Amino acid sequence: MKRILFLVCFPLIAFSQSPEVIAVRNYRVQHEHHLLQQYHDFLSIPNIASDVPNILRNAEWIMGYMRNSGITQVQLLTAETPNVPPAVYGEVMVPGATETIVLYAHYDGQPVDPSQWYEGLHPFRPQMANGSMVNGARIIDWPKKGTAVDPNWRIYGRGTSDDKAGVFAIITAFAALKEKGLTPKANIKFFFEGEEEAGSPHLHEIFKKHQSLLKSDLWVICDGPVHQSGKRQIVFGVRGDTHLELTVFGPKRPLHSGHYGNWVLNPAMELSRLLSSMKDGKGNVTIKGFYDDVVPLSVSELEALSRIPAVEEQLKKELGIRAVERTSPLNHALNLPSLNINGIQSAGVGKQSANVIPVKAIASLDLRLVVGNDWKRQQQKVIDHIREQGFYVTENEPTDLERSTHDKICMVKRSSGYNAQKTPLDDVFAQRVVHSVRKGTGEEPLLLPTLGGSLPLFVFEQELKARPITVPIANHDNNQHAENENIRLANFWSGIEVFASIMLLQR
Amino acid sequence: MKRILFLVCFPLIAFSQSPEVIAVRNYRVQHEHHLLQQYHDFLSIPNIASDVPNILRNAEWIMGYMRNSGITQVQLLTAETPNVPPAVYGEVMVPGATETIVLYAHYDGQPVDPSQWYEGLHPFRPQMANGSMVNGARIIDWPKKGTAVDPNWRIYGRGTSDDKAGVFAIITAFAALKEKGLTPKANIKFFFEGEEEAGSPHLHEIFKKHQSLLKSDLWVICDGPVHQSGKRQIVFGVRGDTHLELTVFGPKRPLHSGHYGNWVLNPAMELSRLLSSMKDGKGNVTIKGFYDDVVPLSVSELEALSRIPAVEEQLKKELGIRAVERTSPLNHALNLPSLNINGIQSAGVGKQSANVIPVKAIASLDLRLVVGNDWKRQQQKVIDHIREQGFYVTENEPTDLERSTHDKICMVKRSSGYNAQKTPLDDVFAQRVVHSVRKGTGEEPLLLPTLGGSLPLFVFEQELKARPITVPIANHDNNQHAENENIRLANFWSGIEVFASIMLLQR
Repeated sequence: MKRILFLVCFPLIAFSQSPEVIAVRNYRVQHEHHLLQQYHDFLSIPNIASDVPNILRNAEWIMGYMRNSGITQVQLLTAETPNVPPAVYGEVMVPGATETIVLYAHYDGQPVDPSQWYEGLHPFRPQMANGSMVNGARIIDWPKKGTAVDPNWRIYGRGTSDDKAGVFAIITAFAALKEKGLTPKANIKFFFEGEEEAGSPHLHEIFKKHQSLLKSDLWVICDGPVHQSGKRQIVFGVRGDTHLELTVFGPKRPLHSGHYGNWVLNPAMELSRLLSSMKDGKGNVTIKGFYDDVVPLSVSELEALSRIPAVEEQLKKELGIRAVERTSPLNHALNLPSLNINGIQSAGVGKQSANVIPVKAIASLDLRLVVGNDWKRQQQKVIDHIREQGFYVTENEPTDLERSTHDKICMVKRSSGYNAQKTPLDDVFAQRVVHSVRKGTGEEPLLLPTLGGSLPLFVFEQELKARPITVPIANHDNNQHAENENIRLANFWSGIEVFASIMLLQR
Repeated sequence: MKRILFLVCFPLIAFSQSPEVIAVRNYRVQHEHHLLQQYHDFLSIPNIASDVPNILRNAEWIMGYMRNSGITQVQLLTAETPNVPPAVYGEVMVPGATETIVLYAHYDGQPVDPSQWYEGLHPFRPQMANGSMVNGARIIDWPKKGTAVDPNWRIYGRGTSDDKAGVFAIITAFAALKEKGLTPKANIKFFFEGEEEAGSPHLHEIFKKHQSLLKSDLWVICDGPVHQSGKRQIVFGVRGDTHLELTVFGPKRPLHSGHYGNWVLNPAMELSRLLSSMKDGKGNVTIKGFYDDVVPLSVSELEALSRIPAVEEQLKKELGIRAVERTSPLNHALNLPSLNINGIQSAGVGKQSANVIPVKAIASLDLRLVVGNDWKRQQQKVIDHIREQGFYVTENEPTDLERSTHDKICMVKRSSGYNAQKTPLDDVFAQRVVHSVRKGTGEEPLLLPTLGGSLPLFVFEQELKARPITVPIANHDNNQHAENENIRLANFWSGIEVFASIMLLQR
């Protein structure tokens, strides 16, 4: 039944764009130069989360643009903690609407190092280029009123893609609907966060404090890039994440590797043995019960995964690798919990290498989680495995007594963590958004059950009992988080249409 | 037959010291304050190998002391390379003697950091203490003529043990024989090196240049400490040494461990797997043929090893370890080639840890060698093993083509190296020296077939066709190479008697 429903929902034909979307496009074309100028002004305000005065300037700018676009109840939502970047809120209540969508984007950006940017570029002095500069495009004059604007041009600057584009596209989408006399089909709430790139440390506080204001049926997050294949994607979840740091101890002082090598256990070798006991040669984690909690993929999810274009060979070439851990495609692999070594260190290598048996060897482990996993339980499985390998596990530097009573000692430091979040692919409301995206773009979007990466999206369910899905609009080669961040105008323009379509909940 | 001979040679009774040794002792007692004053002067000259002007002052001082003691042909032996520390040479040719012994010590010392020494001590301002300062002894006035000198007192300063003690004890031993009218039984040559602590970089040059002058039957090296048990030891060999640095490659750029973790191979895990494939859990290297070249221990060597007092439990306590790699005693283990990890590094740990799949993982390996091993062959066995584990081995950073044609890539950098050296335990001449030590101390010395550590002693055989053995005299807790270096007077006095006994080749 579910399967049939699914097939009904995903016909393999192209969709024609609705008259409403065409109207939104006309709005954009009519106001193109004005919109570009406004976006230029917005991008010129530095937006690092730690720079609170400038963050507040950004928030003020956003509130002005929202009010001018006809959004009501525009206000700052502060956390309980003082002096942290506020979220910017607004709403459009639709008479007779029974459902509420919150549209989310963030207005802060990653820290910048201007010296790393191409000559002529500066993170907070936005520039137009006649294409992708990595492919040889050049900086051009900012387009003057009455001149043609090529949708393949790109704007360079911090936040162009990640994620001022989201803020600007969402507000502009509503402005277009308003001017064209089109009314959203659901109540729309706007929520623009100001410290996402700092790890959203106060998002749960803001949610808790403003719980009733933020009541809703679904959150639609505009963030991140479209698929590497250039296709639009809708992401239904993220993996959870937690870390362990393991320290295996050797002798109390560094020993001469000649006088003692062959007799005293080498902690670097013991750590290597321990780590290699955690995975087989086929990418499977061999820790007992590691995959036990995993909620299997649904039929819809498996179907969706099968539609994702293969990017594996292209990626291998780009990354300079031939073999991979698993024979399954990348996006299948990301639907499993993972155990990854982020780093290892024991004594020195290269010029720092000395003839020693090191006193300790350290490994930093990253555990990604999928729905079903609990981050504390997942940590515990690894710790139990370490014990099964004959180690005494402690949370502190071993005492002399511990050293004298245990053959092998591993100190384990647990980091904090959080669980995965996934909105079911066949969530009825989410499917209506998917259909709106289809109508807004005229294309079948890819549906990603989960990202490989992690975001604390669990907080939506925890604090608000709300489900989020993510609809990215930026080009996949946007250099987000790095120097020369940019957005391709075609992606930007299309983003406005997509979010207008979502507000209309087109059928 | 050999075994019977051996038992004849090693009776388990204490030896009475000969009248000749008593005469040498009397010499020392008669001149005690004068000897201490002279040693004080010698120790006051800084002796870091890189400080050539002071090194030459040391050499001058030694030549004066040698000439005053009746040694002839006193001269500096220079290398071909200009401006490097010379060796100091002298000889005593004995009419009718058919054999020649070279007595070796070095007069340079390890670099110093005066701030690390105990209050009141300075590396080049020798002081007397009324015992071991780590056990609470205090600095006392330098003993005045006519006052009693306790043999448990210690002199603190750089070189007190390592190895000006050797230089001074050897020359003083001959001075004592001379004054007491005792004649060595062999020709004696004296060779005092000036850059041993810098790795003897020109020793082979000096040997080659002065080959005929240095013609001899045996070299007796006075260096290092007695056994941890306090017993005197004679060392017949050293292990060889070489290194390999392995780099396992991952993706060309650090990857997000969420977006790619589970799919892209992690080089830190691959390196761990490779390293742990090299040893089993019982300390055995599992690399094919790793032990094949080893010349087995002789019956005499096995017997000698069985007499070495067990220090294992004491060491474990001191080092804070409970389990060791091998159930065999430490000194048995050191008679095998070893593979030891000196260091590992891949991306960062602790505060440097990031959510990445690292681009590479590096391990520095130390290979110790015993007689039979060839350092290049031993390197090759490890490299062959790496290949057998499925790695493509290269000496350079992999090219894009190599990356695209090999699943796993390991770059191996070979260091230089040198082979082990061992003088057979039943070398007839060496056994006569052993017996002389017995007579000089009244004790049965421990015979160590090899040190775990490495020294380029192969150069004696290579350049001079001569065999060396080592007869240490310093207390085992002398802090050599570190701050607060010291010598216990009883060890110093006994050293003079031992080397006089060796010159007499007592039967």
